[in-house]
Amino acid sequence: MRVDVVFTPDEAGAAPTGLVIDVIRATSTICQGLAAGYEKAFCTAEVEEARELGGRLEGAVLGGERNAVRIPGFDLGNSPREYVEPVGKTLVLSTTNGTRAIVAAARRCDRVFVASLLNLGAVVAAAREAGEDVVVVCAGVQGTLALDDAYVAGRIVELLAAARTDAAEAAARLTASWRDAEEALRASKSGRNLVENAPDLEPDIPFCARESVLDVAPRLVALDGVVAEIAL
Amino acid sequence: MRVDVVFTPDEAGAAPTGLVIDVIRATSTICQGLAAGYEKAFCTAEVEEARELGGRLEGAVLGGERNAVRIPGFDLGNSPREYVEPVGKTLVLSTTNGTRAIVAAARRCDRVFVASLLNLGAVVAAAREAGEDVVVVCAGVQGTLALDDAYVAGRIVELLAAARTDAAEAAARLTASWRDAEEALRASKSGRNLVENAPDLEPDIPFCARESVLDVAPRLVALDGVVAEIAL
Repeated sequence: MRVDVVFTPDEAGAAPTGLVIDVIRATSTICQGLAAGYEKAFCTAEVEEARELGGRLEGAVLGGERNAVRIPGFDLGNSPREYVEPVGKTLVLSTTNGTRAIVAAARRCDRVFVASLLNLGAVVAAAREAGEDVVVVCAGVQGTLALDDAYVAGRIVELLAAARTDAAEAAARLTASWRDAEEALRASKSGRNLVENAPDLEPDIPFCARESVLDVAPRLVALDGVVAEIAL
Repeated sequence: MRVDVVFTPDEAGAAPTGLVIDVIRATSTICQGLAAGYEKAFCTAEVEEARELGGRLEGAVLGGERNAVRIPGFDLGNSPREYVEPVGKTLVLSTTNGTRAIVAAARRCDRVFVASLLNLGAVVAAAREAGEDVVVVCAGVQGTLALDDAYVAGRIVELLAAARTDAAEAAARLTASWRDAEEALRASKSGRNLVENAPDLEPDIPFCARESVLDVAPRLVALDGVVAEIAL
């Protein structure tokens, strides 16, 4: 088995199994929501598309923020701490970088899992069980490397113990340079933006930095245009 | 001043000053050739384009390899050790990843310098003198991160001592994880390929790993389609 990492969705790199990371906070929120009891999660970049989906699906809960502020008319924001108790049946999330990474992974992989630190052990086990080569697809921020996603990629590489591409080796070395997950997440631009723009969301960082507390490996089950449907 | 790094030419990231790296071996060879006395270096990805240019330019020396073998009819290969004494006036190099990175840098930067470990101090001084934000553009290999180029990017970030993007911080941390340049270059896929495919080219690795031995900062002076013209 071989493991590769792409730090931004536009980089080259393909494998049968894809693990998508947008740890602050889209994939952490998806994992938390599905583990808490939502039956499905739909992701889309566009706010209007999310609204339209929310109107069409039974028991839909709309989640999303822009610049750390809940989108007008939406039920919840992007904080995974809002998803520990389900308040509906189906989650509809509007998330720009996260959706882009899921769509990019779908293009290059036969199966796509949603990864975060929260479900690290479970998603690595799912990848190992699939038994084929793995590419870790980091969402990054607007097409650039994000330290928080790169940290999680390196943890996956460490745990998979497969042959490494140059990018996978780089991720593992980068991860080993931090004391722990919280230090890496706080140092990242995503982490700093959260603290600067919305101090009340700062607890999301230690929340997302917890490793293997959820035993779920959410999977992309359908891609309809730019809407990704995710379920356990 | 701010410093950014793109590990592959397709990533987002732009700045007024661009430093291009393909340390094994295109940019090392360009720096060595111009420092040795060649007046200009032309780079192009295509072999036929290089041949055509070579026929047109006075005193042209054709350099290039495919799979570590000199291209038929070319005067020299890609080894920087072949460029320590000029055997003509103008260098015409056929190099796939290196040319692609130079073209990518030209698209996003006002000025583009050619960087390697050989001219590290000189190229960092040139970037500092320009006084504007910097993006380090790594050639990588076929659109993926290359550990050798990433190592040099991290050295540039360390020496520039400017504000760092997430990617620049990642590069500096990655560089700090190696004992020295030669260890990083040998571990990279480009380094391993060289040793495996052409043991006689193995001395290129310690040659390219020497830091700041050439006092040149080659600059992109013209881009004609996909042909890059480089001079001091």
